[in-house]
Amino acid sequence: MSIIAIVGAGMMGSAIGIPAAENGNEVRMVGTPLDREIIDHARKTGNHLTMKRTLPASYRYYQFEQMQEALDGADLLVGGVSSFGVDWFVENVLKEIPESLPVLSVTKGLMDDEKGDLICYPQLFQSRLPQRKLKLNAVGGPCTSYELADHDWTQVCFCGEDMSLLRWIRGLFETDYYHVSLSTDVIGVECAVALKNAYALAVSLAIGLSERKEGIGGIQHYNSQAALFLQSYKEMRKLLTHIGGNEESLPFGVGDLYVTVFGGRTRKIGTLLGRGLTFEQAMKELKGVTLESIVITTRASRAVRKQIADGRLKQEDFPLLTHIDQILNEGHAVDIPWNQFETEFEV
Amino acid sequence: MSIIAIVGAGMMGSAIGIPAAENGNEVRMVGTPLDREIIDHARKTGNHLTMKRTLPASYRYYQFEQMQEALDGADLLVGGVSSFGVDWFVENVLKEIPESLPVLSVTKGLMDDEKGDLICYPQLFQSRLPQRKLKLNAVGGPCTSYELADHDWTQVCFCGEDMSLLRWIRGLFETDYYHVSLSTDVIGVECAVALKNAYALAVSLAIGLSERKEGIGGIQHYNSQAALFLQSYKEMRKLLTHIGGNEESLPFGVGDLYVTVFGGRTRKIGTLLGRGLTFEQAMKELKGVTLESIVITTRASRAVRKQIADGRLKQEDFPLLTHIDQILNEGHAVDIPWNQFETEFEV
Repeated sequence: MSIIAIVGAGMMGSAIGIPAAENGNEVRMVGTPLDREIIDHARKTGNHLTMKRTLPASYRYYQFEQMQEALDGADLLVGGVSSFGVDWFVENVLKEIPESLPVLSVTKGLMDDEKGDLICYPQLFQSRLPQRKLKLNAVGGPCTSYELADHDWTQVCFCGEDMSLLRWIRGLFETDYYHVSLSTDVIGVECAVALKNAYALAVSLAIGLSERKEGIGGIQHYNSQAALFLQSYKEMRKLLTHIGGNEESLPFGVGDLYVTVFGGRTRKIGTLLGRGLTFEQAMKELKGVTLESIVITTRASRAVRKQIADGRLKQEDFPLLTHIDQILNEGHAVDIPWNQFETEFEV
Repeated sequence: MSIIAIVGAGMMGSAIGIPAAENGNEVRMVGTPLDREIIDHARKTGNHLTMKRTLPASYRYYQFEQMQEALDGADLLVGGVSSFGVDWFVENVLKEIPESLPVLSVTKGLMDDEKGDLICYPQLFQSRLPQRKLKLNAVGGPCTSYELADHDWTQVCFCGEDMSLLRWIRGLFETDYYHVSLSTDVIGVECAVALKNAYALAVSLAIGLSERKEGIGGIQHYNSQAALFLQSYKEMRKLLTHIGGNEESLPFGVGDLYVTVFGGRTRKIGTLLGRGLTFEQAMKELKGVTLESIVITTRASRAVRKQIADGRLKQEDFPLLTHIDQILNEGHAVDIPWNQFETEFEV
């Protein structure tokens, strides 16, 4: 039995502890200052306030002030914050933990810098704390928290620099429904699963476009979704291999793209835009909720623009990302550049 | 304006002529002996009997006995037979046409031989007619005939040996809704889009498995579908590159996998099997209709088995294909080998 402290009691942070607790590990849920209600509610009822699922009875709950108590004797720290919490996570958690404590982060995302380079969160964490040598690992691959909590069969990938450490972490979490591949290609896995956010929005545009023909709730069409899915794959592959990721990591991003097209708010905003709403109207309908897909798209396309400008990338390889960025950040209407998707390939 | 003779008046053969006709080309639909009713019905009503769509008023119709008349002056022959019609197509059509007449085939599939080698239909056609040098090209990528007939945006790939010929063919068909990439990687494109039939059945198992939890018509779950989608991608990639296809062709197969999971009979049989029906029960429910997915799965897994036996491939790379074959051909119940999907990858 090991002790796992999870900081961040959002849905994914809370769900990933479930297989670990069922494996007999002690799971300590630590809320961030934003999770106060979630922790209180879970203590009282045993249920997760927003995920609306029963959590394991063995979970122990801590408010953020009690983090040191939760870390006492811990064998693994899970970072469960959203991508909007990464700065907070570095300053308030990663700076405070012993270097010997392995970290597994569920946060998916990418950051771009002023030169137009893209870095993934494990790289970002390490760069923010240059004086510390942390054991950083991350989770990628298709997994929605609800369905993990429901014990649906799921396949993810844990990535990190040290394969033997990854194997040990897998041993804590793996169950007959939660299946874990391992990879030391951190940049590849993290890039693939971050980009799917941007491209899931892109594929979802076709859902709204099809509703223009059939009406909302009408028969769904799939040729256009598939065309955008295949174009997303092409662009994700181009960017992933360009920044040094390995082709072997792409399936986790493509699987994640699949699951993201079918769930949640990214699908919703893509659909609304596809119906013909402006970005402002769509955000209003979503009540201004902040979406990771929009942040990722903006960062990735800003980086790609800079790299196109200095000749590292070619414009013609990213027509879909460019268009999504124009819709979100430059007020363009949806007008998918289908012609630009056409390629010629000679062996 | 060019003259395009389409032999095979099934749904895809009939649909692909629509963009060509709208581009001002003369389209001559030639029914096979099995299409007699379709041709009669279209002549009388202008509609396609099984696709249930209006065909272009400019289409000209021919019964098979009139094929020579339809070929007179033709600039392109489109092969529109299903994969059950390929032998017939070789003997009755490809043997009869001038060698100078370019061919574009919409038939998707693979054939295995006694050594366990897989060949695609353009290779098969040429091998059956060794004394003839035909100009064979083929269509791959995600495109359902209904949605093409409905003018949905669609992205496909034409493949063949001669890029300049491919460009000319594209010019006949390309419209603002029908977009065409080109590739000389015939084996890669054809392998990718054939294999999607087998793997679409595999992904669809998760739909039925989810119905065991939620009931038929209940909330759909996607983690398991995405896990099978990513595993399908891995296995398709392994097989495609193994038989000499290029990684660049894989997106067309993955896009085609996406569209096939969401449409038609392959999804239906996968779902029924996932619910727990035996293969016999599932086929009974589908009234014994012959499915290309079953033929492809059987051929591909027979070839893979032989290549594993003689050391050319590894069993561990194809756990999903192996399981699908066991379900279809050895009476196994659905029991997805999730553990075997786990991989370790070190850069």
